[in-house]
Amino acid sequence: MSNLLANGYAGRMYPLNPKAGNIMGRRVYASVKDLPETPDVAVLVIPALATVEALEECAKRGVKFAVIESGGFAEVDEQGAKLENRIIEIARNSSMRILGPNTSGVISTPGKFITTFFPLGRIRPGTVSYVAQTGNFATHTMKWILSAENFGVSRVIGLGNRCDIDEAEVIEFLGNDPSTTVICVYLEGFKAGRHFIDAARSVSRKKPIIALKGGVTAGGKKAVTTHTASLASDAEILDGIFRQARVARIQRYSDLIHVPKAIAFQPLPKGNRVAIFAPSGAMGVLAADACEKLGLMVAPLSEKTLQKLQEITPPWLKISNPVDIWAAVQTQGFERGYRLGMEAALDDENVDAVISILLLTSDGGSTNLNFIPELHLRSPSKPLLVAISGDKESFDKSKMFLENRGIPVYLPVDEVCETLATMYTSAQLMVR
Amino acid sequence: MSNLLANGYAGRMYPLNPKAGNIMGRRVYASVKDLPETPDVAVLVIPALATVEALEECAKRGVKFAVIESGGFAEVDEQGAKLENRIIEIARNSSMRILGPNTSGVISTPGKFITTFFPLGRIRPGTVSYVAQTGNFATHTMKWILSAENFGVSRVIGLGNRCDIDEAEVIEFLGNDPSTTVICVYLEGFKAGRHFIDAARSVSRKKPIIALKGGVTAGGKKAVTTHTASLASDAEILDGIFRQARVARIQRYSDLIHVPKAIAFQPLPKGNRVAIFAPSGAMGVLAADACEKLGLMVAPLSEKTLQKLQEITPPWLKISNPVDIWAAVQTQGFERGYRLGMEAALDDENVDAVISILLLTSDGGSTNLNFIPELHLRSPSKPLLVAISGDKESFDKSKMFLENRGIPVYLPVDEVCETLATMYTSAQLMVR
Repeated sequence: MSNLLANGYAGRMYPLNPKAGNIMGRRVYASVKDLPETPDVAVLVIPALATVEALEECAKRGVKFAVIESGGFAEVDEQGAKLENRIIEIARNSSMRILGPNTSGVISTPGKFITTFFPLGRIRPGTVSYVAQTGNFATHTMKWILSAENFGVSRVIGLGNRCDIDEAEVIEFLGNDPSTTVICVYLEGFKAGRHFIDAARSVSRKKPIIALKGGVTAGGKKAVTTHTASLASDAEILDGIFRQARVARIQRYSDLIHVPKAIAFQPLPKGNRVAIFAPSGAMGVLAADACEKLGLMVAPLSEKTLQKLQEITPPWLKISNPVDIWAAVQTQGFERGYRLGMEAALDDENVDAVISILLLTSDGGSTNLNFIPELHLRSPSKPLLVAISGDKESFDKSKMFLENRGIPVYLPVDEVCETLATMYTSAQLMVR
Repeated sequence: MSNLLANGYAGRMYPLNPKAGNIMGRRVYASVKDLPETPDVAVLVIPALATVEALEECAKRGVKFAVIESGGFAEVDEQGAKLENRIIEIARNSSMRILGPNTSGVISTPGKFITTFFPLGRIRPGTVSYVAQTGNFATHTMKWILSAENFGVSRVIGLGNRCDIDEAEVIEFLGNDPSTTVICVYLEGFKAGRHFIDAARSVSRKKPIIALKGGVTAGGKKAVTTHTASLASDAEILDGIFRQARVARIQRYSDLIHVPKAIAFQPLPKGNRVAIFAPSGAMGVLAADACEKLGLMVAPLSEKTLQKLQEITPPWLKISNPVDIWAAVQTQGFERGYRLGMEAALDDENVDAVISILLLTSDGGSTNLNFIPELHLRSPSKPLLVAISGDKESFDKSKMFLENRGIPVYLPVDEVCETLATMYTSAQLMVR
């Protein structure tokens, strides 16, 4: 597997039927026979019916890995299932490993390697890896990450129909991969639940694994049979599998972006006690609700911290957690108000994590937010997550500024709290 | 009340202590005595201790409405509560009505009237109204709506401590307000649950009311006492109140933007059967899950619709709902694939609403999305909601294009489904 995912490849092949030539700047071949050298990895983008013969030629020529992008196999009909069985046979009878079919394949930034034809542009290298039972993540989800997010990606592996390489094997690989620090999984079914549990349970001792399961409702399950022909599991079985596997289950598609971003940038919390800074009472109330709904706790701040916070706050506002920081901002200025407040909370041993909701508007001129990454460097072992309220321009600009300095940024109110809650769940599972 | 919320005002007053002058282009007075004429509405931004005297002067001069922006009353301490009681006395003993204290007041686009000092810029007139037990919505939440969203706002009323005017009275007013079609409520507690139920129950026969309740967890409830000194209610009591009041309860802060946007642009669904178009199998699976988790149902498409969809789709992909539309797009082109598919679904009497997830990237050149508002005009009685997957630039541009033509746009996958589910809940409650 390591060649496919990690080390790049010596040659590559795109057999296309009927015409060879160039696709998006890449040399494409009509047949395995035309290849100038034996590739480590062959990428097949040919009609399903032609794959069996091409794979046999690949195996004969000593190709190490075949990525089958074509659809038209078990996910379609009986005939497709038969074709897929022949592919499984080829994999068994040769040393060649197969990814797919029905997948966009692999992105590997350490290997400078990408199999998808989807136009992606430059991918920022980083430590977040995705394993998905769909080509989705190597295509449009990546497109969003590349254009709207500021974290880097290590590997994206689309499993497709998993006729050979499956989620357990990939998770095991990523567990030993030094360029991966967090593993995100999208699955519609388990190829072998026991293997998944064994692999994930061992890997999650070292690095967090988060997972989204598609096909948990009647309508979703029915859709799964069309998409990947997986057998969807019942909610209880599913929860049991994830718990045994020490995998933090997420519920929303967007969490596949929100959560790894935070884990890539920040440490996991050592406990569930969170200090909340909000520019208004209502935001504080809603953040407290969002946190406590999901197992976090509004931290009981120490007397010392409360005193420090009260010192920067006008006497008419009695400070408690969640901290309404706006009165302090109005008397101390934006930076001093937020900085002194957050610093006190980060120093408090009753606090395991800090969520700070900043109010930013572009009419006020640009605000220097350097103090936030500075605060994180000063207290690197406590996660610090930021949400920004205000106008869109301020949000977009400040998100980029802060995320390029390791501070994950969200829209208020729920996303940031849900992200911290998943981090806490993950931390608990890993040491269980 | 109508003068305060609806009709604008003849004069205005900003007594400020100690200095009169100009604040953000507005003439500000030091005392009620200095006013050149008797205002309909007086806006008080003076220290809490000075309000009682100023209010007495206002009442004496015949001011009709006083908006008290100052904090420092019942939400702070015993002394503040006593001050607030004196304000309540003044309201009772005069014909003057009081909004607040502890609120940013009122925005009224039909009345061209705004009391908040928060820099907001031009507000797009529209039919969405907010009632909030906090000044939040007239300030930073509005800032986001103005810069990132494309729907218009009618009234924003910050209730504050509700010493006189309360949520029931405002909801009643908005129920009769021709420029309001949807009412969004943020409450931390009910001033009088019975009045709220009576008012909302009657108004929701005519227009949808959605509500977010702050202070539903232990930490949130504690924060509420600091913020608005409301008595937070238990979850069951709360659900009972909202059900009796025919108010659709929402769970997330962002729903206060997502839901009214859809209701402002689109009709409520007549049933829960939704057709889903997705550019990938996984997106379809996840959208089906998100819909069915919340009481929507993946529509059983009619034979006729399935046939129409299959006609534009390559034979290897067997079409069902959720519809993987990407194969049709690749053979028919983007517009033709989506258009024919969505048209068939909108024409299907088994379908009550359509969610379409578009895959858009800017490398593909700009895509003409005019066919989507055209489809809505052709089937105006079925809600049509869009989510966009792809890069951020395409998302931002297409969101603005479509929303300016009445099609609400979301990020994939959960938000758009949750919004439609709340629309359905609201539709059900209104006719119950």
